[in-house]
Amino acid sequence: MGSLPSPNDLSNTFNPMDFTELSTESKLVVDFITQYYQTLETRPVQPRVKPGFLTGQLPDEAPFHGESMEEILSIVNEKIVPGLTHWQSPNFHAYFPASSSNAGLLGELLCSGLSVIGFTWSSSPAATELENVVVDWMAKMLNLPSSFCFSGGGGGVLQANTCEAVLCTLAAARDKALNRVGDDQINKLIVYCSDQTHFTIHKGAKLIGIRSKNIKSITTHRENEFKLCPNDLRDAIRSDLEAGLVPFYVCGTIGTTALGVVDPIKELGKVAREFDLWFHVDGAYGGSACICPEFQHYLDGVDLVDSISMNAHKWLLSNLDCCFLWLQSPNALIESLAAEANFLKGNSEMVDYKDWQISLSRRFRAIKMWMVIRRYGVGNLIEHIRSDVSMAVRFEEMVAADNRFVIVFPRNFALVCFKLTSGMTPQGRDSELTRELMERVNSSGKAYLSGVQMGRIFFIRCVIGSSLTEERHVDNLWKLIQETAQSIVP
Amino acid sequence: MGSLPSPNDLSNTFNPMDFTELSTESKLVVDFITQYYQTLETRPVQPRVKPGFLTGQLPDEAPFHGESMEEILSIVNEKIVPGLTHWQSPNFHAYFPASSSNAGLLGELLCSGLSVIGFTWSSSPAATELENVVVDWMAKMLNLPSSFCFSGGGGGVLQANTCEAVLCTLAAARDKALNRVGDDQINKLIVYCSDQTHFTIHKGAKLIGIRSKNIKSITTHRENEFKLCPNDLRDAIRSDLEAGLVPFYVCGTIGTTALGVVDPIKELGKVAREFDLWFHVDGAYGGSACICPEFQHYLDGVDLVDSISMNAHKWLLSNLDCCFLWLQSPNALIESLAAEANFLKGNSEMVDYKDWQISLSRRFRAIKMWMVIRRYGVGNLIEHIRSDVSMAVRFEEMVAADNRFVIVFPRNFALVCFKLTSGMTPQGRDSELTRELMERVNSSGKAYLSGVQMGRIFFIRCVIGSSLTEERHVDNLWKLIQETAQSIVP
Repeated sequence: MGSLPSPNDLSNTFNPMDFTELSTESKLVVDFITQYYQTLETRPVQPRVKPGFLTGQLPDEAPFHGESMEEILSIVNEKIVPGLTHWQSPNFHAYFPASSSNAGLLGELLCSGLSVIGFTWSSSPAATELENVVVDWMAKMLNLPSSFCFSGGGGGVLQANTCEAVLCTLAAARDKALNRVGDDQINKLIVYCSDQTHFTIHKGAKLIGIRSKNIKSITTHRENEFKLCPNDLRDAIRSDLEAGLVPFYVCGTIGTTALGVVDPIKELGKVAREFDLWFHVDGAYGGSACICPEFQHYLDGVDLVDSISMNAHKWLLSNLDCCFLWLQSPNALIESLAAEANFLKGNSEMVDYKDWQISLSRRFRAIKMWMVIRRYGVGNLIEHIRSDVSMAVRFEEMVAADNRFVIVFPRNFALVCFKLTSGMTPQGRDSELTRELMERVNSSGKAYLSGVQMGRIFFIRCVIGSSLTEERHVDNLWKLIQETAQSIVP
Repeated sequence: MGSLPSPNDLSNTFNPMDFTELSTESKLVVDFITQYYQTLETRPVQPRVKPGFLTGQLPDEAPFHGESMEEILSIVNEKIVPGLTHWQSPNFHAYFPASSSNAGLLGELLCSGLSVIGFTWSSSPAATELENVVVDWMAKMLNLPSSFCFSGGGGGVLQANTCEAVLCTLAAARDKALNRVGDDQINKLIVYCSDQTHFTIHKGAKLIGIRSKNIKSITTHRENEFKLCPNDLRDAIRSDLEAGLVPFYVCGTIGTTALGVVDPIKELGKVAREFDLWFHVDGAYGGSACICPEFQHYLDGVDLVDSISMNAHKWLLSNLDCCFLWLQSPNALIESLAAEANFLKGNSEMVDYKDWQISLSRRFRAIKMWMVIRRYGVGNLIEHIRSDVSMAVRFEEMVAADNRFVIVFPRNFALVCFKLTSGMTPQGRDSELTRELMERVNSSGKAYLSGVQMGRIFFIRCVIGSSLTEERHVDNLWKLIQETAQSIVP
């Protein structure tokens, strides 16, 4: 910024990019983060705070004069951190992780430092090309067919999260369908998913103008391991076609939220092809595991898929946010999302990522992801996944060996679903007892679990996935659960 | 992560959050960024690279073994940085800035370090409450009516960018309208904007299912300073109503992309109220300036507005990404965007930000924005805006004083629009000469300008806004332009 006669009686010249200050202050922040990581283990995972606890402690208005970084960090430490749920705690098992790493953190830092916007190739060429490289790398890591790679005629993009990725594919599929049946037919369009599909598909479909009643959640069954059944899908499509409706999109999942279930991609793909539906696969969590050869069979039939997404920030150490989306034929997406503005002159030969996503502006996520892959290498990323799965196996074995507990569904990936039960209690009370167990564990602050009500059963979800979780945390968790159970069902 | 017998023959145990390593490597990255900032001035703003230049230099597949941070940074330095357009260069004037600062950078670092996800209040209470505080602070800084503050019954949210914010308000307005006229009437809904409105409104409207022909760009005129004319809006609405259509949304702008024009908010608001349209104000760039009292008159009538958005990452030093969105009645937004999932138990008294945005997951942007405001104080942020405006005034005066140039439209904020002209040349060639001038300046690498074709006129947009730009850069830019012009129109 330029120099101004200071109109605000500010004593010093303001230089928001002072190099010396950056060096000093960045050390303060890094030290703060390091200390935070070091103390995470001992912090209550969920804070015991009441609504409004923080609002009441901070000033109503922004300060006119600046404060020092030391002062700011001390407020963060004293007022903000105690009110956080610590997603990076080794004792956090409630949701699929937001997995952090040093390389992810420093990749974010570099992304912020360079602060370029690659909305078109020409608006920062290396940003676009590095993203092309990274999405191809990851496609190969997952052993996706080459048709999903730029080098094979397809391509991919890094978005913030699955919700955005799903929204974009829904819009592309909608427009493709409307081109066929007429653009006044939106009310006839039908989306399919299962009752286990993440709610983002409902939200995304509503956002693009599909009425709630046109979003069909196909019921899954225990006999079928809660997978979306291809025959049920076919029946639903046929019945809708007979009713004069226009089926256009189906979403399958690799690793559902509640149970970690993997839908049968190949069989669903055949149905989708039969009726010319757009087939999207949401691999938000489970997709990451497919970098390990032993999980790649889940992707059998992925050549029948139009688009597939995966959140690297869940299990591939990329820190928030980073969602991969690949397509075999990106043109449908581009046709739907391209918007021209004469101040942005695109180069038709090159990828202009503004046409691959909702927004114009975008962060340089590719450099972060590239740094994570390069710093750790595929080998370590595979080891990271395997280590979590191995700890989940260990945890599942301990639960299964204790007859007060029931594994409600066999473990998938690193997700263990169990409930408390007791021969002394009618089965109808299991849910109540399990809920009680979860709440006592959570309120101890020593661990954080989540629960799901599925039909009449309430069960606990325990995900192993924080980058700081080690075997001893899993063992302590199990001990805590056992002791707590003892106080509920003696 | 846990310990595994290494299946990949990796020699060391993998610890992605090693504290010592973080300390050492973060210093390397900060030094890299500092050095980058220090050399920015001398780097060609736009790289002279050909499509494919980077792809060809990087391996086709991800490495199996990790590499050192030193190796990675040297590749960034040698291969990637030379292919970037340097948005932080003091000589970058092509687009509205992506304004960086130390506090923005370190706020991002802290956000990544804490890596919590506040999708509901309970998923990380302090994250939600700090965001409540920050959006209220900024609302007060802009002197918005208290009805936009949580403390006054309204509220706000931090999203990634304007495109997301606009999309969400469009969906809320659509659903409100459909509730009134019936949910099978989407094909009748009409959106209004001007031919100067950012294309994000077209993209957003198409995304939520509005047909292109139902997005009405009202033509603006020079006589009316290219503002969206309230009477023209009223006429368009009446005519559409007579045709049986359903007008539902209008977008005004504070600081249009091409010319920085401010639409008449109060008069447009009256029209919107008259016909019960949702009125959104896009203050992506110009909105920031309203922290300065001398610009706040642009917000006159904002009490008639349903929602207003502003990108702090454009001019308020927050680094990418940070877009404020405020609403007087957030309920319409929440009703449209809320999606329940039984694994997310919300607390109806508290703000669950998943219901204020497209996505479930979200970064902790509030801590970054809070750090920027706190570190610099409102006084310095005001000074930052004023300093850029003052440099733009200086630049405009120099251009105006040279009779080879024409200011095509009076400066707004820190945006100067001008063209090259010559008495020796028929006016018809001005556009060609101006384009030639821009291309020569840009290809010199010494500065980066953008151009707009508006009707038959092509002109150059010069935005002052990089945090590193000082008076001497503006003076050098002018000298460069003059010398280049000399070679075109001697």
